Amino acid sequence: MSQAETAALIDDLLAGKHRALARVISKIENRAPGYRELVSELHEHTGGATVVGVTGSPGAGKSTLVDKMAETYRERGETVGVIAIDPSSPFSGGAVLGDRIRMASNVGDMDVFFRSMSARGTLGGLSTATTDAVKALDAFGKDRIIIETVGAGQNEVDIVGTADTVAVLVPPSSGDDVQMLKAGILEIADVFVVNKADLDGADRTVKELKEMVHMRDASPLAGTAGHHGADAGRDDDPTGGADDEDDGWTPPIVETVAKRGDGVEEFLGTLHDHREWLASSGELESRRRERYAEEIRRLLREEAADLVQTEIDTRGGLDAYVDAVVAKETDPYAVAEEVVAPIRNRIEEQQ
Amino acid sequence: MSQAETAALIDDLLAGKHRALARVISKIENRAPGYRELVSELHEHTGGATVVGVTGSPGAGKSTLVDKMAETYRERGETVGVIAIDPSSPFSGGAVLGDRIRMASNVGDMDVFFRSMSARGTLGGLSTATTDAVKALDAFGKDRIIIETVGAGQNEVDIVGTADTVAVLVPPSSGDDVQMLKAGILEIADVFVVNKADLDGADRTVKELKEMVHMRDASPLAGTAGHHGADAGRDDDPTGGADDEDDGWTPPIVETVAKRGDGVEEFLGTLHDHREWLASSGELESRRRERYAEEIRRLLREEAADLVQTEIDTRGGLDAYVDAVVAKETDPYAVAEEVVAPIRNRIEEQQ
Repeated sequence: MSQAETAALIDDLLAGKHRALARVISKIENRAPGYRELVSELHEHTGGATVVGVTGSPGAGKSTLVDKMAETYRERGETVGVIAIDPSSPFSGGAVLGDRIRMASNVGDMDVFFRSMSARGTLGGLSTATTDAVKALDAFGKDRIIIETVGAGQNEVDIVGTADTVAVLVPPSSGDDVQMLKAGILEIADVFVVNKADLDGADRTVKELKEMVHMRDASPLAGTAGHHGADAGRDDDPTGGADDEDDGWTPPIVETVAKRGDGVEEFLGTLHDHREWLASSGELESRRRERYAEEIRRLLREEAADLVQTEIDTRGGLDAYVDAVVAKETDPYAVAEEVVAPIRNRIEEQQ
Repeated sequence: MSQAETAALIDDLLAGKHRALARVISKIENRAPGYRELVSELHEHTGGATVVGVTGSPGAGKSTLVDKMAETYRERGETVGVIAIDPSSPFSGGAVLGDRIRMASNVGDMDVFFRSMSARGTLGGLSTATTDAVKALDAFGKDRIIIETVGAGQNEVDIVGTADTVAVLVPPSSGDDVQMLKAGILEIADVFVVNKADLDGADRTVKELKEMVHMRDASPLAGTAGHHGADAGRDDDPTGGADDEDDGWTPPIVETVAKRGDGVEEFLGTLHDHREWLASSGELESRRRERYAEEIRRLLREEAADLVQTEIDTRGGLDAYVDAVVAKETDPYAVAEEVVAPIRNRIEEQQ
């Protein structure tokens, strides 16, 4: 893509043309030639949108809730962009897409821009692609950006880490699900949503979540875990929301029945409260700084990996090394040293 | 650590001294000076052990099953090493340790060597630490190595990918759990274990797993997903185990009640069958090659990340760059290019 083409595409995107937005995101997904320049250009136009991450296990009702969020924002005259991420399996890709055809017809206008991305359809890391797609939506002028992702693994944690506010959906169910949450997602939750709150077990799930949030706040480990919520509130009321006294934030627990729209307004109110708290406490600024730092580190790791790949290719690929490792003539650490040492030496020579 | 100290430590480990084994694994966890040389030295002594990964959600009964496995192997006169991994939260670390104090007293001998590792206690990547600790146990002469890890995220997939055979535990429960499995773990399962098979819902879980395995085999996507099991069988009997016709492997579904020991012998028999299939089909060889290739790539990525960090440090750290990105004077891609370009140029100059 020539510089003139990049400039024209950016102009169209900034002018609010959805087709240009879709093209830019496709280039981001495919890492098409010139996509870096595109994303570089977008950066100065960002910062106007609020970015919310919605995560939770399959069946928790994420897509229904996200649809209702989008609908409600639209009714208020705000524009919305949704990025739905399927980080892992090729199996669920189709289902996600199927869901969203429905959504498009529900909402019936293009001001809800929906895009699904999967590991299979995206070259490179999904965190990078998500970060860049959010920039495109933000620069385009979307007021609200929602990142929807399944599950609680490290990938998902990295992905929702792109958002200012993270909502974790929990289905009413056995204690197992709440216990599962401990493994990674608790630390990043700014708001818990017990969806399908009309089902049996919802009260118990709310109670368990309250206890868990309370334990976290009381734990000596509080504040050491995770990049989000690390400084969340330490008061004794786990549903108390913002806590004026120590300027912290305790994740509230909201109940919704998304398919009927119950509790959606309250949920959006909680997101608004969190946003206000982020701004007034200085957390918004410090999270954004941390995100930029992480983005730079991630891009540098990718660049470094490219350098290493080039070095391996120059040496005729990995196969001969693997042969030697299998034959126990060498071992993986020795191979890594052999490949990287020349690069390190050249850098040091010039310093 | 001097070369002589490294040599003495290796000698002690190879002579079967558990204290030396524990010291080596500590050095691996802490990336103590000289740990790379240690692991390099271990490599030529490896290859004698069978390595089994056991994974599943919290509450599935992994630790009980692993205890019974270790006990049964010991009764057969085989030596056992267990590495229990807690990849994510600081919250469960204590619980895991608590469990294992119990185990040590059950088994009552040192030939079950147990070690737990957590992301918090381990510098660098857990996959690398696990790979290296397995090497130490293998070189030490343990006959059976069990890697136990929670959950189904990408980290866990990477970790159990260190094993020859992967067993996935599923608790009897609602369909949600089986659905959750689709997100990443299905592709790496060589054996499914429905533990707590005496509980309500076990039959249904077995049935759902059978359907899932069947769908996988029938799907045009079969064979494209995951690094393990990618060539698993495609026959119509999802519980059939090894399939002679196309030399594939269809994950069997085993039922156990680990706390009573029910089904444990059968489970170990299935692990044995899988091992036989791995060897006879050539999969053992090709998986080991793929693991070595991945290990080299991972070490190279780590080395490359170190180079980049050195470059950032040389330039006075990331903070000034983040300031400039916040002020929109530059953007993350431009920063990455600025840092990496000189390295790339120096490499190209010398080629």
